[in-house]
Parts: sequence; C-alpha cells; structure tokens
Amino acid sequence: MTPLKNFADALVHAIERKDSVVCVGLDPRPDQIPASIMREMEEEFDEPLEALANGVLVFCKGIIDAVKDHAVMVKPQSAFFEQLGYRGIWALEETCRYAKEQGLLVLLDAKRGDIGSTAEAYSEAYLSEHSPVDALTVNAYLGADGIMPFLDHCGTHGKGIFILVKTSNDSSGDLQDRITVDEQISIAELMSHFVSSWGFDHIGESGYSSVGAVVGATYPSEAKKLRELLPHSFILAPGYGAQGGDAQSVAPCFDEAGLGCIVTSSRGIIYAYKNVEGPEDESHYAETAGEAAKRMKEALNQVRKSS
Amino acid sequence: MTPLKNFADALVHAIERKDSVVCVGLDPRPDQIPASIMREMEEEFDEPLEALANGVLVFCKGIIDAVKDHAVMVKPQSAFFEQLGYRGIWALEETCRYAKEQGLLVLLDAKRGDIGSTAEAYSEAYLSEHSPVDALTVNAYLGADGIMPFLDHCGTHGKGIFILVKTSNDSSGDLQDRITVDEQISIAELMSHFVSSWGFDHIGESGYSSVGAVVGATYPSEAKKLRELLPHSFILAPGYGAQGGDAQSVAPCFDEAGLGCIVTSSRGIIYAYKNVEGPEDESHYAETAGEAAKRMKEALNQVRKSS
Repeated sequence: MTPLKNFADALVHAIERKDSVVCVGLDPRPDQIPASIMREMEEEFDEPLEALANGVLVFCKGIIDAVKDHAVMVKPQSAFFEQLGYRGIWALEETCRYAKEQGLLVLLDAKRGDIGSTAEAYSEAYLSEHSPVDALTVNAYLGADGIMPFLDHCGTHGKGIFILVKTSNDSSGDLQDRITVDEQISIAELMSHFVSSWGFDHIGESGYSSVGAVVGATYPSEAKKLRELLPHSFILAPGYGAQGGDAQSVAPCFDEAGLGCIVTSSRGIIYAYKNVEGPEDESHYAETAGEAAKRMKEALNQVRKSS
Repeated sequence: MTPLKNFADALVHAIERKDSVVCVGLDPRPDQIPASIMREMEEEFDEPLEALANGVLVFCKGIIDAVKDHAVMVKPQSAFFEQLGYRGIWALEETCRYAKEQGLLVLLDAKRGDIGSTAEAYSEAYLSEHSPVDALTVNAYLGADGIMPFLDHCGTHGKGIFILVKTSNDSSGDLQDRITVDEQISIAELMSHFVSSWGFDHIGESGYSSVGAVVGATYPSEAKKLRELLPHSFILAPGYGAQGGDAQSVAPCFDEAGLGCIVTSSRGIIYAYKNVEGPEDESHYAETAGEAAKRMKEALNQVRKSS
C-alpha cells in the first residue's frame, strides 16, 4: 500500500481504523520520570543529562507501547526535551521514530513560527520527507509569509500543521479574544479565516485539509463558533483532563460523522499512576497510562458518535 | 566585579564599553558554509550531519572572533541549528558558550511561546542560571500566563526576553496591523502595552527593562510610534541589510542618549564575502564579516548620536 500523501487523509484513516480520536501528549517532566527508570539509567550512564535523556526515552517508549492501541497520535512537547540540551533532542528524535514504528502518527508540539526564510529551515527540520514527524504545531503571529514554507512541505511530503487559534490557557484571551474594527471578529476568528484559506489547497479525499487549528477544550463556546468557521480543518483540542476539559466540552468540535477533531491529553494519561487510589505504584505507570487512554477513547467515542 | 544582575543594565554597559549597538545574527545555512570548511570536516567526520554540525561550529566561531570588537551581541537563529538534529543543537550550545567566552552577549532567536507549565520548561531550557544564553526572543500569542515563567527567570538570573511586537517580514501586518475595537490601536501597539507592563518590575539602574520588544527595521513609521509606547524597553530591530532596513530606518528607535535599540543583521555580515567585488573568495569570510560589522557599527553610531 502506498502511504496516503495527505496528512488529513492519513489522520481520518487512522481514526477509523483504531476507532479513536485520542492523542497522547508526551510531556516528560524530568522530575516525574518514575524513579526506578532513573535508578537504572544512573547506573548505566555517568553523565547526569545522558542518564536523564535515556530515562526520558525509556519512559516515552513505555507509554507508546501502552497507548498505541487506543491512541491515533502522540504529541511530544518539544520544550521538555529541549530542557535536556542536545541529548534531549536525541531522545526526542528516537521517541518520534519509535512512535512511528509502532503505527502512531506523530505531532510535534513545538509552536514554531518565524519569517519566511527561517520558517523554511523549521519546515526542513521537522517536515522533510524522511522525518518521523507527521505534523507540527505552528504560531502564525508573523502572518502568511511565515506559513508558506510549512504549506509547501505539507503539499510535497504529505505532512500537516496545526495553527494556534484559541489556546487552552487562562490568559489566551489577552490577545486572541480582541475584536478587530474592520471585521468585528475576534483575533481567534480572524486566525480561523487564515487557517481556512491557507488550507484550501491542501484538502484531501476525506474533505479535510492538512492545515488544522488548535482550539482549547477549555473554551467550548468558542469551539462551537470556530468549528463552523473551519469546515475543512481538523481541530486539535488540548486541555482535556488536567487542564479541566472533558468529553462534553469537546463535543462541539466534531462533525456529524464524529470526525474533524482530535483530542489531546498529557498529564492525565502519562502520569495516570499518580492518580490511582491507594499507595502510588510507579511500576504500573505504563499499564495505568494504557487504561487511561482507553477510558478517554471510550468517553470521546460516546460523545462524538451521538453528536 | 560581580556580574550585573539585570540584563538591560548589562546590555547598556556593553554598548557603552564597545561603542556599538550591533548584534550579529548567526544564521548558518548549511549550503552557505564555506566549502573549504566543509571539505576539512568531511575528512574528519564520517557521518554527514556530524561533519555539517562541526562545520557550522567552526564557521560560527570564525564569525564570532571577527566581529567581537564591533558587536555587543550575537543572535544565533535556532532554526538553522535545529535543522541538523541533535548534532545541530550541540553546535548551538558550543556556539553560545564560545560567544560568551569572547565577551559577547548571546540572544537566542527561538521565538518560543507556550502555556505556563510548558513556558517554564522553555525558560529552564534557555534562561537558567548557568545557560550561556543571556536573552531569548519570545512569542506572546498565548498571553500573560505564557510569559510569566520567562519573567521569573529574568528576575532571578539576570536574563532578558524580547517579545515579538512588529516583525520585519512583508506579511507582518496580517495580524499585527489589525486595529482593536476597544482601544482603537493595532495589535502591535497592544503588544507594546503588554511588553511595557510585563517589563515594569524588571527595570534596572539604566532605566531600561530586561523585557524588550522586536520591532522590524523595515517599518520606520511604526517604529517611531512604538518607541514612544515603550519608554523603558530596548527595541531589537531586525531587518537591517539584506531585508532592506538601513541606519536611517532605525533612527526613530533610539532615545536621546543614543540608547534603547540594538540592531541586528545576519546575511549582510556573515555572508559579506559573497558581496565583495571581483571573484568570490570565501577564505576571507571572517575578515569581510568583521569589516561589515565595523561599517554597520559606524553607520549606526552616526545616526544614533545625532538623533
């Protein structure tokens, strides 16, 4: 089978095959890697950052193995890898490669954005032909010419981008909720119009474009409006779980076929072992992550199939 | 001498000591590293990306040595290092360390921005106590809570940030020129107000804050307005040289004492050997970069001292 050359088509295919819209955020916070993994790594590696980077990789591989049947995508958060310097980037590359081998789509959450000639270097860095990364989160504060190089890579290599529209954090309104004089719409809505127009040439057979939008699960009423403005865009909804979003709050993001949205949770899944009743038992970190991903899949399936 | 614990004070001190407001952008584009450097590296290293990363480092060190008397700061562009994977990040770390040793301030141009808990990881990655990076460019599309962790690091470790306000690229107006209904100001002006208020607690003895603003040298009339809105913020003005800005176009960015602005050029300096008349001679790449930095320093000094 030739690989699908449109990211949105590949995403829809994966959702249907796995019956899931779950994306697992890989946020390997150095102080939350299970201590047993770290003890083993510290015995093996003398250099503390090397031990930590290897610990991060072991931890992420464990999570990937545990969630791969319930999730369609993983979303490594670049910041937590960058924090470990070049060894962390090595661990990030290995994590992406491993996730890919295990049949998961890989969305790198790096929120990159720059002027054209620099955005080209970012596109080359993450969305080139042989990169294990399938899609990248992108910040469009700089406008169209900073986005074009990413679009080129979407077209040529079957990759995708998710542009920040309405983010999940408390202060997202500082800028994103401002209303423009000319169009009388919010900056988030303006950004949706950009996403829609930039994505137009990248709509696949599924009817969805490889240019998606980030819309926080923490703002359901905005999500409803933005869903309408983005008929051809997948919504990536972060903020599920630890940040307060739940299955009901992402319900407006799905289309009638239960598609059009992918929901991401990090802490609620990868550190699920911390939430189990009774004494904390980190030896089951992978198992509990798998169970949490399964529960999330089921909760979302109930909502999206009845919407 | 104890190091100055406020980034803006350190910047003013460096400007006065070197009589320069020049920042040299380090954009090591893989295809533009002088071929003689690459030949040597390819003999030494079997792995192509390792050879390239080492070539980038040799090139950047050559530039640093050549410009260090004329520039106060270097600005490595993260994208060009990220493009080489983890080996590129190793080269970036070594470049920053070397620049620091040579008495230059280091501004990492990475335009990071994320929700609070992730922004904390980015702050840790780049602005922690022992990092050779003095300041970071930051994208505030996500609002205040994504900026707070960076401010904490500015306060605790004497580091700085430059927030994107009005960028130098053609399409910067797509978002940044929109006018808000409530305040009747542009998004760039709104962002200036944020920069001003976020920076208020980080004003040093120089009267300048460690929270600066990126304002493209390509938009002089906006720069004049933004300068007034940002009485305590350093402006980082990119777009000088290759992008079309010149000494006249950054004139409005300086205060009466000829301070308050730092001007950055990349291609016009580091690839100056390509612009020398006669046959291209890459063996003088460092020498011509030094001369270009000196000319830029002199052109800017003329303007800022007569403004």
